Amino acid sequence: MQTDRMDDTLIDVPRGLTNVVAAETTLGDVRGHEGFYHYRQYSAIDLASTRTFEEAWHLLLVGSLPDAEQLAAFRSRIAQARSVPPGVAELLPAIAGLTGDRDPLAGLRMALAAVAAHDRIRPLYDESEDERIADAIRVSAITPVLLASLHALAEGREPLAPRDDLGYVADYLRMVTGRVPDARHEHALSAYMTAAIDHGFNASTFAARVIASTGADLAAAVGGALGALGGPLHGGAPSRALDTLDEIGTGDRIDEWVTRTIDSGGRIMGFGHAVYRTEDPRSRMLRGIAEGIGGARVAFAVAVERRVQELLERMKPGRELHTNVEFYAAVVMELCGIPRAMFTPTFAAARVVGWTAHVLEQAADGKIVRPSSRYVGPAAPVALPASPVAR
Amino acid sequence: MQTDRMDDTLIDVPRGLTNVVAAETTLGDVRGHEGFYHYRQYSAIDLASTRTFEEAWHLLLVGSLPDAEQLAAFRSRIAQARSVPPGVAELLPAIAGLTGDRDPLAGLRMALAAVAAHDRIRPLYDESEDERIADAIRVSAITPVLLASLHALAEGREPLAPRDDLGYVADYLRMVTGRVPDARHEHALSAYMTAAIDHGFNASTFAARVIASTGADLAAAVGGALGALGGPLHGGAPSRALDTLDEIGTGDRIDEWVTRTIDSGGRIMGFGHAVYRTEDPRSRMLRGIAEGIGGARVAFAVAVERRVQELLERMKPGRELHTNVEFYAAVVMELCGIPRAMFTPTFAAARVVGWTAHVLEQAADGKIVRPSSRYVGPAAPVALPASPVAR
Repeated sequence: MQTDRMDDTLIDVPRGLTNVVAAETTLGDVRGHEGFYHYRQYSAIDLASTRTFEEAWHLLLVGSLPDAEQLAAFRSRIAQARSVPPGVAELLPAIAGLTGDRDPLAGLRMALAAVAAHDRIRPLYDESEDERIADAIRVSAITPVLLASLHALAEGREPLAPRDDLGYVADYLRMVTGRVPDARHEHALSAYMTAAIDHGFNASTFAARVIASTGADLAAAVGGALGALGGPLHGGAPSRALDTLDEIGTGDRIDEWVTRTIDSGGRIMGFGHAVYRTEDPRSRMLRGIAEGIGGARVAFAVAVERRVQELLERMKPGRELHTNVEFYAAVVMELCGIPRAMFTPTFAAARVVGWTAHVLEQAADGKIVRPSSRYVGPAAPVALPASPVAR
Repeated sequence: MQTDRMDDTLIDVPRGLTNVVAAETTLGDVRGHEGFYHYRQYSAIDLASTRTFEEAWHLLLVGSLPDAEQLAAFRSRIAQARSVPPGVAELLPAIAGLTGDRDPLAGLRMALAAVAAHDRIRPLYDESEDERIADAIRVSAITPVLLASLHALAEGREPLAPRDDLGYVADYLRMVTGRVPDARHEHALSAYMTAAIDHGFNASTFAARVIASTGADLAAAVGGALGALGGPLHGGAPSRALDTLDEIGTGDRIDEWVTRTIDSGGRIMGFGHAVYRTEDPRSRMLRGIAEGIGGARVAFAVAVERRVQELLERMKPGRELHTNVEFYAAVVMELCGIPRAMFTPTFAAARVVGWTAHVLEQAADGKIVRPSSRYVGPAAPVALPASPVAR
């Protein structure tokens, strides 16, 4: 149980707040030693493999898996929440002109703030639970539309309007690529995006909760999460895993490339994770999905994974260095026809559902997240020296 | 000394991370029991009363008070960092059209993201110390210009370009009001803004540091801080203190208004602070400055303050309820001709200097801020029920 403070004594904890319980949550957890994570009481991998994105979304946001009627109603709310207001649509070409495909998350931050201003999304603490859920659906549902629109504009194409006869993930893929996907690719991307909705605490989720704890509006909290996601230490850059595949090039060059990279102190992108001590359960699922679709690229990726692990075990014995989610996420997104510039945005299009669920949980808590710092500079006060400015 | 974690055991701390040391800092501290706060080794109030905003800025960002030559060079860098790129200037009318004077911080978030995209501000962890300082100056220096421009556009006026022959604070005041201020008003606003640059840890500063810890770019970190500042629990709403004065109206109505407000469980805006157990040192300084300028409004504010405190002591004995910084900040900003919609933006125009100094300190630390959560929901995994979707 978290307690309220008793006095003003500072509490020392590990750097970076590692292992510090910043919130109690009913949304889910990661069990790194078991290679397992869950959304509420259900395995996230089971959900990702067998349910639609919208069902997992309903589970996290509302608290339960929907029955047929609830799911139909939820889909209808999502569909309505995807329309881009004309005043925002007019801004998108200028935003895309500034951010291009170079910084799509910055473009999304601007576009989401514009939607929030247009919709007059209110501070969380002024809203009822129902209004917060409506905001969460709005901000989450408009995100893939804004991302696909900015991407189209960056490529010099007209944005495609959403189509409500397709599933949520299928329609996102259509808006990004311009083509309605077949069932295999729809299922592959849906599994990835559903598995990416949430994954325990991380810097972007935490940033969103800190901002939400002040009672700021939901779009401001998601804007902060997007800012954190852009940082290289957050780890959301699946396109780097394809760079690894490209650099290796062919199967006969794996050994030479890996040996050279490790000997020169480089990191092999797509391997290693801060939390899992086992294989990342998302990797296992996505590898299976990729192999189900098949092809030379997938076979090469599997060969690289197998050989890199053999070599890493030999060169760094005792270190558990499995592929992380980025590796097969990149393979799956490439199979689905998503360009590399849209890999991290696609992750954001899924994770925004998790962020908004965390924001609502934090808003229900109602207490501001306001830690302290310890001053370690020279003793104060020291008398001011003479000023260089005549006053 | 902060330590690195040793194992995976969760560490329980008070709710909202109260008193938890989230960072070690050399930037300053607040001593709530002493009614004292400082920037590095100097009293913040002494700096605010006797130095220019730019000198305090140099102290926090670079680490020392500037000599005459350093100050001239710093002012020159600031002046150069204030130009709005044409591609961003073209966006401002559309942004102002969406946010108006209703949500100027959301407008600033969009405009700053646009500047960052235009300038191609890079992730903090890819930059040298010099590049980070340049970004900090750019983001801080452009902030008042963007705020004043968006405000002018919201009022249907053309934005005024910066003028480098005026002091930093005087020119901000000119851009907001359209008039070059006299020395008394320049000094009053400079004292307020210098005193507002930093004030220990708070939710917006912490949000900026969490985002910066991922290595995100500096503008993304400031965007998160602006999001947090928009929340009602952050407390940055000085205009509410004027609402108190307006509601009371005249000196003979103070007693009746205060008694009625407290009896009905209402809060009296402008009184009480989470940290100070004494008078807020910023209030004392700003009261003195306001009284130096004088006038009926100031006399009324002083009378309200005195009488409210007498009544609060009688009605809530033992509670130390002094005016907080909002009360006389509002009086001073009103004296300077700043409209109420620009009170919180003016605070942001000062605080951005503190945020960027904290961001640079966090970036130099280099470790991601990534706490944990404790799962308190139903035990997982539970087998999935039948799906309502035919697949």
